[in-house]
Amino acid sequence: MRILILGGDGYLGWPTALHLSDRGHDVAIGDNFVRRQYDHEMGVESLVPIAPLHTRIRAWHEHTGRLIDTFVADLTDAHATFDMIDRFRPDTIIHFAEQRAAPYSMIDREHAVYTQYNNVIGTLNVLYAIKETDPDIHLVKLGTMGEYGTPNIDIEEGWLELSHKGRTDRVLYPKRPGSFYHLSKVHDSHNIEFACRVWGLRATDLNQGVVYGQQTPQTALDDRLATRFDYDAIFGTVLNRFVVQSVLGEPLTIYGEGGQTRGVIDIRDTVECLRLTSEQPADRGEFRVFNQMTESLSITQIAETIANISPDPVKIEHLENPRVELENHHYNVVHHGLVELGLEPHLLSDTLIDSLFAITRRYAHRARPDAMLPTIEWRKPSSKISN
Amino acid sequence: MRILILGGDGYLGWPTALHLSDRGHDVAIGDNFVRRQYDHEMGVESLVPIAPLHTRIRAWHEHTGRLIDTFVADLTDAHATFDMIDRFRPDTIIHFAEQRAAPYSMIDREHAVYTQYNNVIGTLNVLYAIKETDPDIHLVKLGTMGEYGTPNIDIEEGWLELSHKGRTDRVLYPKRPGSFYHLSKVHDSHNIEFACRVWGLRATDLNQGVVYGQQTPQTALDDRLATRFDYDAIFGTVLNRFVVQSVLGEPLTIYGEGGQTRGVIDIRDTVECLRLTSEQPADRGEFRVFNQMTESLSITQIAETIANISPDPVKIEHLENPRVELENHHYNVVHHGLVELGLEPHLLSDTLIDSLFAITRRYAHRARPDAMLPTIEWRKPSSKISN
Repeated sequence: MRILILGGDGYLGWPTALHLSDRGHDVAIGDNFVRRQYDHEMGVESLVPIAPLHTRIRAWHEHTGRLIDTFVADLTDAHATFDMIDRFRPDTIIHFAEQRAAPYSMIDREHAVYTQYNNVIGTLNVLYAIKETDPDIHLVKLGTMGEYGTPNIDIEEGWLELSHKGRTDRVLYPKRPGSFYHLSKVHDSHNIEFACRVWGLRATDLNQGVVYGQQTPQTALDDRLATRFDYDAIFGTVLNRFVVQSVLGEPLTIYGEGGQTRGVIDIRDTVECLRLTSEQPADRGEFRVFNQMTESLSITQIAETIANISPDPVKIEHLENPRVELENHHYNVVHHGLVELGLEPHLLSDTLIDSLFAITRRYAHRARPDAMLPTIEWRKPSSKISN
Repeated sequence: MRILILGGDGYLGWPTALHLSDRGHDVAIGDNFVRRQYDHEMGVESLVPIAPLHTRIRAWHEHTGRLIDTFVADLTDAHATFDMIDRFRPDTIIHFAEQRAAPYSMIDREHAVYTQYNNVIGTLNVLYAIKETDPDIHLVKLGTMGEYGTPNIDIEEGWLELSHKGRTDRVLYPKRPGSFYHLSKVHDSHNIEFACRVWGLRATDLNQGVVYGQQTPQTALDDRLATRFDYDAIFGTVLNRFVVQSVLGEPLTIYGEGGQTRGVIDIRDTVECLRLTSEQPADRGEFRVFNQMTESLSITQIAETIANISPDPVKIEHLENPRVELENHHYNVVHHGLVELGLEPHLLSDTLIDSLFAITRRYAHRARPDAMLPTIEWRKPSSKISN
């Protein structure tokens, strides 16, 4: 298949590109490199050094003989977006190309507006480009488990069969997201469902949990193929950040009580979910939703897992929660869909965490410990990025 | 109370400003006049001539001795928005200032993107300005009944108590809107609910039905106080358009079967709902939703009402439906909230329609009959505005 990966230079986009190229698909990457620019703004870098995209692609070609095409395009530029899709003519578009950090969206008004503008308008432009060039293209869109929030009922896969006053309907699962970033994905989901319903497009919305890990078999081939590893309080996902804190001898910082429970997924499962979804597309007119996570863990459970495995003594510290979120809540998520497509989950295992420790130790000298402390406060209209 | 009316130069914003000023409130209007600019783009004008805002305000002062302050600001300009709110320091902000026509949003990509950008980012800027200047300000935001679509269950007022697998929760009512415009209001609702939940703002979302009528006691005082009357297929609401078609001897054009049922409301009730809502604000942290409509009618029922009252013979014509919507569906809407605040609805009565016929006859020479035929096709990615 011809697969265009938007945001293919990012944390997950890049390993997905390699995984799909490895499986014989014709892969192209679209990116505007804005994720690398955020590093300059934040004053923090990926713990693992990452090569420029052209170097990455050359290294992949050296190792495998396979070519990955590239397009430099900003999705908020409708003409560039249309042109990229018209030239590559993909069967599938995998869309990672959004600002993806909740704290980044909560820095201040400018960052909230940027996040919603970038994400919502970018996706609208992709929908129009699909409709105008080839409505048969399957859009695989990265959503987030954070779209649902933490409702007091079980979380279904995107849709809900409900009864009310003796009548029934199948509706989009009600959302209660926890940041302007998560809201941007809720907006996307509504826009995409509409495009499927009115234009007959085909789309899969992947509501992904918190991803952990840094390596896939392909990225491990060569240092030049490494993907980014964010450990800071803004872009670093919680498990990765805890590993770095433990290696640096810093306390693992839990926000509030730590009873917050989230769906999590191994990076190797992420890239496999993208393959399975791409190879088994949604039907025309179908807005298909999967909950892309393999297990649920509370923040305390994640911290304790890291503390137990770490060879060094680890301290756990509770900080005042900078976010507004429930710290003790019901959390039961249906996530059968991707398993039915063939996913064989890697559950959180010592093996993976061992490799994370090794990677972290190798690059520990690059870490800036203060970048791991939260600075963005949900209750304030603006926060400073650095302490 | 000090009440700032955003979009106060528009069809409903202007009569609302006069109604609230008449009741003794200190009213200011914020507008960027873009609604007048759409007229130039569409090549069609309000059937009833409207005076420039400064003339309107002078006329109101002549008649009543009351002053209405004005701010020229585009809500997508965050600094202008902040400055306006900081200078006027309202108790209540009534927010009509959005692109409000579903067909306009479906013209093509540019208009879809414009609509979502203008509406969603404008409202985000208002939320931030409230949070930054005075979080006690009550935001009264115009939503639309079209946010709900036509679900197979009864439509509640914004929230839904639901049971699922033996557990219960109160959630935002699931939405299935029918255009990129309606989607923009769904996005707004989610953003506003979040701001109430996280920042403790107070907001009322008014999901308004299709408004009919053109006069209120205040606008009828003087021709210079008239509000706009749109009859074209893009901005004209259906009942108003049918009246104009009947007066011009044109057939009333029903899209498809005509079983589409919508909530409707008299313009005099709209302005009263805004008064009642402003004077009885939501609590801090509350996201309050009312369904601002007084009765449900199918398009066929609306056409037959007009045909029965018209002194001239009226033909009803069914056109192929340019929209994607159910033409026969369940529609049962809860709309108690505003009645509990004190609304005494004007139901669709001959009296009002008589006055609409009189207004239309007076200005019939200004009508462009071809502008009443639909040109915007939902199933196409782009349509021409004129036939």
